[in-house]
Parts: sequence; structure tokens; C-alpha cells
Amino acid sequence: MIKLPLKLPSHSYDILIGRNLLSESDYIRQFIGSDKVIILSNETIAPLYLNKLKKSISTEKYFEYIVSDGESEKSLKQFEAISTFMLEKKLDRRTILLALGGGVIGDLGGFVAACYQRGIRYVQIPTTLLAQVDSSVGGKTAINHTLGKNMIGAFHQPSLVISDTSLLDTLPEREFLSGIAEVIKYGLIRDYLFFEWLENNIESLVARQSEALSIAIRKSCENKRDIVLKDEKESNLRAILNLGHTFGHAIEKLMDYGSWLHGEAVAVGICMACRLSRDEGLISEKSYIRIESVIKKARLPTRAPKECSPEKMVEIMQGDKKNSNGNINLVLLRGIGDAILSQKFSEALLYRVIEEGKES
Amino acid sequence: MIKLPLKLPSHSYDILIGRNLLSESDYIRQFIGSDKVIILSNETIAPLYLNKLKKSISTEKYFEYIVSDGESEKSLKQFEAISTFMLEKKLDRRTILLALGGGVIGDLGGFVAACYQRGIRYVQIPTTLLAQVDSSVGGKTAINHTLGKNMIGAFHQPSLVISDTSLLDTLPEREFLSGIAEVIKYGLIRDYLFFEWLENNIESLVARQSEALSIAIRKSCENKRDIVLKDEKESNLRAILNLGHTFGHAIEKLMDYGSWLHGEAVAVGICMACRLSRDEGLISEKSYIRIESVIKKARLPTRAPKECSPEKMVEIMQGDKKNSNGNINLVLLRGIGDAILSQKFSEALLYRVIEEGKES
Repeated sequence: MIKLPLKLPSHSYDILIGRNLLSESDYIRQFIGSDKVIILSNETIAPLYLNKLKKSISTEKYFEYIVSDGESEKSLKQFEAISTFMLEKKLDRRTILLALGGGVIGDLGGFVAACYQRGIRYVQIPTTLLAQVDSSVGGKTAINHTLGKNMIGAFHQPSLVISDTSLLDTLPEREFLSGIAEVIKYGLIRDYLFFEWLENNIESLVARQSEALSIAIRKSCENKRDIVLKDEKESNLRAILNLGHTFGHAIEKLMDYGSWLHGEAVAVGICMACRLSRDEGLISEKSYIRIESVIKKARLPTRAPKECSPEKMVEIMQGDKKNSNGNINLVLLRGIGDAILSQKFSEALLYRVIEEGKES
Repeated sequence: MIKLPLKLPSHSYDILIGRNLLSESDYIRQFIGSDKVIILSNETIAPLYLNKLKKSISTEKYFEYIVSDGESEKSLKQFEAISTFMLEKKLDRRTILLALGGGVIGDLGGFVAACYQRGIRYVQIPTTLLAQVDSSVGGKTAINHTLGKNMIGAFHQPSLVISDTSLLDTLPEREFLSGIAEVIKYGLIRDYLFFEWLENNIESLVARQSEALSIAIRKSCENKRDIVLKDEKESNLRAILNLGHTFGHAIEKLMDYGSWLHGEAVAVGICMACRLSRDEGLISEKSYIRIESVIKKARLPTRAPKECSPEKMVEIMQGDKKNSNGNINLVLLRGIGDAILSQKFSEALLYRVIEEGKES
């Protein structure tokens, strides 16, 4: 088991990474002590892992709340329903919320925990690779609004993250690969050595080999931690985490969310950002080829669907909540492992990169 | 104008105290700059002060959202409606929310600001004495749930507080006096010299004399600031701010909120806590008389209504969210200006203090 400590200015917690952590109950038991517990999970995950988790909780004072599987659960309605349930059960401020699931459960549970009686502790038990490498660091929690994703939320740090890699065994192939897009991102934005490691080990990672998984999760979390430590609330430094995301969100939105997974859209977005970086003379053609090659070996898409015209994409990108003044901020690369935030790029090149970056 | 700086570990802001600050537009104008603004206010306050505030905002990019006057506006429904309005107006993360009103507007507006796109800046412009001395320090924001007051909320610090004492000119007498209960509290829990000042100046304060008001607000804010600085999230030290409140909340609840104002209930609660302190031998009879005398001179009640039987009061007090294990934590005094948090008091004395502290 890897234990990765996160020491934020006002809050510290550990990320545990390894196989079968849910069954190694001592650590969880010790953490919970005699406090009350509420487990939040969904209908897909609960039948697979809820009993295993329950066995690791000694306290009898626990409750469970199971929602449907899907993004639509990240709603104000569900937020209210969970809060009401917790109040009905008279759960007090010392209650710990365990979020057992992927990004939706983490975001929803984290936001409930952020607001319940002005904040209670919560434990993230991510069950997707994406959530293990990305959502478990940074403290972002949110629900969706009909007018936009993640529009209502809070920064609320977990008190413990348990990344049990054996939970990934049951993850569908596309969802698993989608998580690798975020892993590759960390190499690209600030960790050249990790990118080299990925070039050499991408097959093991795709095959979900335990050792490769642990390394990939740890390196991703470490990189995100180092960024977040320097910049707890979102501002410029933290923005480099969005490599590929401004493009990616536009693709997801144009495809009405759902048909494309987040990581798939981000993979294409990374390709677009890297080709823009190349065409702006920031990185070499050779670097670009290396990047695209790793993405392809991860069986991730490198081209957007043909619906994603430059005009539609740019319109959405201008409305992104990261762009306060209508200008588009993009994360570009000056080299593999060296990202910058930039507004200085040719609009013509941007249109061309999108046009050439989609299927025709 | 008094400028009271608050330097929290991760956030700093100023509290401005003085007359006619809303009209001294330079400071507000400078603070807002070219950012978008949304003003939240209510139907009672808006006709009185909204135009004055608008004149001090140079930006044309402002919006207003007016709710009804009353505690019922602190609802999830209203929270959602304001968020929706802001999203419809495409307000971005750099938007500043100005909360012009009393505690309800401050709590509601603060919670909207805490959650809108994971947190935007907000300015408190409190229009009641209670909000000026109490709500403007500490960062507590919340809405109510049908199962309990302030059950959904967040800690979110304002970016500026403008305590314009001329806004108190229109405050109804009972509401104004109710705020003095919290002022007296600060003297009692940690500031003997301030209590002495209150003994000598309570008439000027009750008469809303400008100089006395400024001093009372400043001393209250300074004392709360010093407590909050030592203890940003609620724990033991901060708990002394609840002197009289556990009793007070029980009275408010038994009276179904509304017929008794918060400060009135707190005034009675302070008397009960101080008599328990006296009967436990912690403070002298002489000290108790001084305390009750100041409260009486502030024309505040010192006795609970006859409906508040010890049995009913204690039952509610046990369910207070500050009491995690069913035991009652009370703030008691060891002297004027010296508060402690205690569970060690005789239950018989507690019952007697409540029985004798209500009208028969």
C-alpha cells in the first residue's frame, strides 16, 4: 500500500493506493472510530462493493443512500434528498460521509458533505480510474444546473481517499481507458520523466497490471497535489490542469454528453492543444508524434466527430466558465512536461487545428 | 470611518464602520472596479437604500435580485432561484455579490456566493445592528431546511463588510435592541473593560448615538475577530460565542420563531446562563446583578415566556447541533469577561434556573 500524504495549509489527509484496500479494514476502522457513517453509492457499484465496505466498518451506526448511476444524479434535487435523509436520521456534525463510486458520487457526496451543517468530513473511495487519478485531489465538489455543469459547488477537501485498484477490475473498458487520458495529461503538463515512463509502460497500464496502475495513480496524484498545494483555489497555476479540457468540454457539449466519455473528449482535446502548440512553433513535430502515439496506444480517440465544426466549438469555448472576458484561455505546451496558459495564439490556427482535428 | 482589518490565514478583508458609508462611494467603486455586480436585497430594505447603493457603483454591469422580507427566504428554493437568475444573466466567476440587508440576506447571499461556480466574492452591507456586530465576522453562511435552521451552509468569508450606522436609523426599535444582546455578550465572554464601557454608555447606545454605535460595533467585531482568528472553523474556543444561545434557541423554537426576536431570546438565555454560573458558585451575586441590570437598561427581556418549561427546554437543548453526544454543552461565566464551555453542572440547578427564569 502506498500512503501519499497531502498537507494543505488548513487541512491534511492521506491518499491510500493499492490492491484490496477495502478489505484491509484496520485503517478504515481506525479512521472512523465510533463516529456515525453514511455511505453514498450508486446502483451499479453498490451490489459489487457495498458489502465489502460494510465489513470494514465496525460501527453499527451507519446508514446507506443509493442513487441511480449517471450524471443526472448530480442535481440540486438529489442534493436536497440526501440532506433530508441525513437530517431525518439525525446525523450530527461528527458524521463521516463515505463516497463509494466514480466522479458523480464523489462530486455529489463531496458537495453534500461540504454543506451539511456547514461541513462534515468525507472519505472518497473512487471506483473509476478517472476519479482515482483526478477527483481525489483538489477538493472540487459540485452538482449540475440545467444551465451548466458543475455550476453549483464548493471547495471541500476529503479527510481520506482510498484508491483501491482492485475496484477497477469491474470497470468497463471504455471507462477505464478514458481515465488514462488524464494520466497522460500529468506527464504532458509538468512531468517529462513520467511521460517517458508512460511511453514505456502504456501496454501494462492498458492491461490494468497492478504495479503499473499504482505507479500511474501515484504519479498523477503527486503531480496534482504539487499544483494544488501551490494554488489551493483555482487560479493561473492550477489552470494548466485543463490541458485539452476546453476543447474536450466543447466536444462533450456538442455530443450532448454521454455518447462521448470525458476522457475520450479530453484525449482529442489534448491532441488539438498539442497541434496548436506545434503550429505556433512551441513544440516540435517529433514531440507531437510522441504524444499522439501514446494516446493511440491507450486506445483513445485522437479525432473529434465530424459534428464538431470550428465555428460551433469556438462559440462554446468562449462561454467556458474559465474565460472571464470572452477571450479563450488555452493550455499549450512549450515542451513535453512544460505547460503554459496562453491567450496569444492565432485565431486562424485555432480554427485550422479544430477543422483538421475532426473526422471529415 | 473606522477600518478594521481581518487577516485570516487564507483570506483578508476589511470591515468599514461609520455613518453614511453607502454615500461615500469611492471606496466601494474602487473595490468593485470593472467587475460585474449582483445586489441581493429584500422588499423592506430595497426601497430605502438600493438607489443610494446603486449611485456608489459606477459599473453598468449590475443586476439586482429582491426577495421578500423574512426568514422563510433562507430556503433551498430561493437559493436555486437566485443561482438560476445569475446563470441566466451569464454572470461569471469574477462577479461580486452585494448582500444589502440583515442576517437573512447575509446568510442567503453568502451561501449563494459560496456555491456559485464554487465560490465568488461577496460584500456584506448589513442593515441591522445584529448583522453588523455578529454576522459580518466569521464567514458563516446558511439556509434553512424544514427539519432545522441553518442546516445547509458553508464557511465563506466576505471580501468586504460595510457597516453603515446610518442604515440603522430606520430599524424598528425591537429589532435594534435585539442587536444589543449580542453586543453585551462580547463584553461578558472576554472583554471586561468593554462591559464596563457598556454599563456607562448603555443609554447612549439605546438612543442610537453615532459615536456609541461605532464603538459598540467595533469592539464587538474586534472580539469576534480575535476568537475567529484563533479558531476559523467552529470548535471549542469559538463555542463561547454561544453564551445564552443554547437557551435562546430553545426559547425561539418553543415560541415557533417570529414572536420572539433572536436577540430577545439570547438576552433571556444570557440571564439563565449567568444565573446557572452564579448558582454553581462561578460568579458572585453582585456580578449577576450588574449583568441583569445592563440587559434591563437595554430594554431587553430577562425572563422567558411561561410556555418555556424546563422539560421542554432541556429536550430541545439536547438536540442542538452543537451537542454531538446528547450531553448539553453550555457556555458559563467564571467572571465578567471570562467564559468557559462546560458540561459539568448540576442538572437540578439547570432545571431550577429555567423554572425561575420564566414567567410563572
